[in-house]
Amino acid sequence: MTSEQHAIEERIRSSFARQGLMATLGASLGSIAPGRVEIVLIPGPAVSQQHGFVHAGAVSAIADSAAGYAGLSLMPAGRGVLTTEFKINLVAPALGERIIARGEVVKSGRTLTLAQAKVFAETGR
Amino acid sequence: MTSEQHAIEERIRSSFARQGLMATLGASLGSIAPGRVEIVLIPGPAVSQQHGFVHAGAVSAIADSAAGYAGLSLMPAGRGVLTTEFKINLVAPALGERIIARGEVVKSGRTLTLAQAKVFAETGR
Amino acid sequence: MTSEQHAIEERIRSSFARQGLMATLGASLGSIAPGRVEIVLIPGPAVSQQHGFVHAGAVSAIADSAAGYAGLSLMPAGRGVLTTEFKINLVAPALGERIIARGEVVKSGRTLTLAQAKVFAETGR
Amino acid sequence: MTSEQHAIEERIRSSFARQGLMATLGASLGSIAPGRVEIVLIPGPAVSQQHGFVHAGAVSAIADSAAGYAGLSLMPAGRGVLTTEFKINLVAPALGERIIARGEVVKSGRTLTLAQAKVFAETGR
Repeated sequence: MTSEQHAIEERIRSSFARQGLMATLGASLGSIAPGRVEIVLIPGPAVSQQHGFVHAGAVSAIADSAAGYAGLSLMPAGRGVLTTEFKINLVAPALGERIIARGEVVKSGRTLTLAQAKVFAETGR
Repeated sequence: MTSEQHAIEERIRSSFARQGLMATLGASLGSIAPGRVEIVLIPGPAVSQQHGFVHAGAVSAIADSAAGYAGLSLMPAGRGVLTTEFKINLVAPALGERIIARGEVVKSGRTLTLAQAKVFAETGR
Repeated sequence: MTSEQHAIEERIRSSFARQGLMATLGASLGSIAPGRVEIVLIPGPAVSQQHGFVHAGAVSAIADSAAGYAGLSLMPAGRGVLTTEFKINLVAPALGERIIARGEVVKSGRTLTLAQAKVFAETGR
Repeated sequence: MTSEQHAIEERIRSSFARQGLMATLGASLGSIAPGRVEIVLIPGPAVSQQHGFVHAGAVSAIADSAAGYAGLSLMPAGRGVLTTEFKINLVAPALGERIIARGEVVKSGRTLTLAQAKVFAETGR
């Protein structure tokens, strides 16, 4: 890992640690690479909707943070990221041992960055 | 309140109580009317992002539930609601004593219902 | 009408005249007010989808232009508007004598402006 | 090409021919495969916005049709497709000799199908 990559990872870990919601949800940072960041959520009653699946709001929260940190990973030090809008499609109930949101930058711009997060479940391994 | 309205309110309160995420976030049900449901969130470190504002994911969660229950309030008993997709625009930092998501049905259909939630802050009162 | 409103209307009419697509669709400008602009489309085979309804793309085109010009109507002279993203929900087939897209500014910002367009049909009158 | 693929292609070509808007825009069908359909648009004044780029509405129109036909390509004969909603991000001005919208099915469901279209420019070749 280069020292620049190390600095980026430090910046993201430090910002993530200040996102109180992530601790409240029990979410944790997964892998971090330039333009790509993963966040992991463990399904359970604390993040569920009425049928026991992970609530769309919890899925949105980790997707939003993963996409935001993917954007931050490509920015110079001292810059911050603020979500202005997002769209989410929920194509299947969120079930499994771990729910992983993988955020990836689609287009990095001066004022606007577009990132996409895919959220999927993992079991076993 | 008619007995039908009472039944609707019971259904929504009972479903809300099973949404573990709402308790985890400290969110509560506000007013309930046919086609319109409010959910209230108290800002604080437990639902924050890195700058101390309410995390977009927490805003999304109460917006999604408020819109979903607005939809449910117009459905016959025994029917359920599942979010398939939503879009959110964050136009200002979520700050204040209470954050209120007001969900309202735009179009109620046989298989698809469209609802919109406005999220705003309230202080004092 | 104040001279400032007159200048805004001139600016929008001049920009609209350069949008070749609007002429191709047969769309025309309706009422113009600060923060609110209407565009009118006449349904017909030239703008239809396979069932004879107005194509979602034609609905999107007038909605996008109406929202964009609503934003432009609140900007100082010399500024331009560029759509970065939009979301559209199609809740009923677009049928009628006239389809009207009414764009309204929700939040006007320095770099980002959020506008909403409602598209509805009108018959008779 | 199997006879089933041939039937699918026939169905899409026949439906496309009834989309009056596509002819009005000068758009044409590109490659067709199960779950993936391309539509081609030639930039020019007839489909432009005020700066001469392709209008977001024209981009949306071919993206919507490409995604819709990708969905239709996986459906049994006799079924139809109707767009209920879409979201579009415009990340760069649409410029080039040909604009291609490539629609691909993400998730095919009983009542709802999710498809994604990527729109890109091609020059030369």
